[in-house]
Amino acid sequence: VFDKMTDIFSDYYLWILFSQTWEAISKARNKELLSQDISERRAALLFIIQLIGHDATPVKISRYLFREPHSISELLDRMEAQGLVKKVKDLDRKNQVRIELTEKGHEYYETSIVPKNIPEILSVLTEEERKQFLSGLIKLRKAAIKLIGIRYEVPLPPIDVTPPLR
Amino acid sequence: VFDKMTDIFSDYYLWILFSQTWEAISKARNKELLSQDISERRAALLFIIQLIGHDATPVKISRYLFREPHSISELLDRMEAQGLVKKVKDLDRKNQVRIELTEKGHEYYETSIVPKNIPEILSVLTEEERKQFLSGLIKLRKAAIKLIGIRYEVPLPPIDVTPPLR
Repeated sequence: VFDKMTDIFSDYYLWILFSQTWEAISKARNKELLSQDISERRAALLFIIQLIGHDATPVKISRYLFREPHSISELLDRMEAQGLVKKVKDLDRKNQVRIELTEKGHEYYETSIVPKNIPEILSVLTEEERKQFLSGLIKLRKAAIKLIGIRYEVPLPPIDVTPPLR
Repeated sequence: VFDKMTDIFSDYYLWILFSQTWEAISKARNKELLSQDISERRAALLFIIQLIGHDATPVKISRYLFREPHSISELLDRMEAQGLVKKVKDLDRKNQVRIELTEKGHEYYETSIVPKNIPEILSVLTEEERKQFLSGLIKLRKAAIKLIGIRYEVPLPPIDVTPPLR
């Protein structure tokens, strides 16, 4: 029983460490974005909208982030008010909108992707360590998705891609 | 230049995947905590308060989470209202309080640590993969802390420990 409790604590520590690392990278990222008038969350959303492309509906976007569609809709409303995205109603299904970046959104997207903190942080891993870490993330992500009980397939961001052409 | 852009995109994809994995595990964890009237964020805070022990001040707690002290204070206020923690004024420095778990906080702590989702998710990694993943997290965390420019040492949760005795 005691060994079992030790295992549970050890597991939970690893989870706390995972959370700490995520918070630290988010903070580093927010720090470099301060001068750019955009938060990491919004910058990530611009990235995901670009990644999904023409079919970027609020529902699809929310799946990338494991968020409820209504909370993503609220964030998209605020980003629309900031002039970063616009809603386009040209889909067959009623009440469905596509999300597109505005000209300003494109500019913010391009300047927010280029900064250096994420590459600098990741550069501490060797090529081999990076592959191992990536493989660990993909396994953990898959196991978590199974436990959440999501029935639709959650899109995995492609890792080795060339940047989308405009 | 094109190779450099590809690297930047590849780095950013890895960061998005990291975020997705964190969100998915948080969601799995919140799902199992639903019946227990506590969120993962509050359960993690109970864990950290226990981990720090007697010296758990709001400032120390906030360092574990890379959050501003005021945002942690607000969360602690809400947890105090929920009866999970109490503030104790027995420190030498004025205006400083220690945070302690109440009896109810202890109960929530013990029942929220035991559930199965975190161990089940982590069990998909082999012993070797777990070590590699852990080592990757520690390196990334260190690199991010350096970029944030924090001057005090940020406590690292110990990984191989026996559970604290009560």
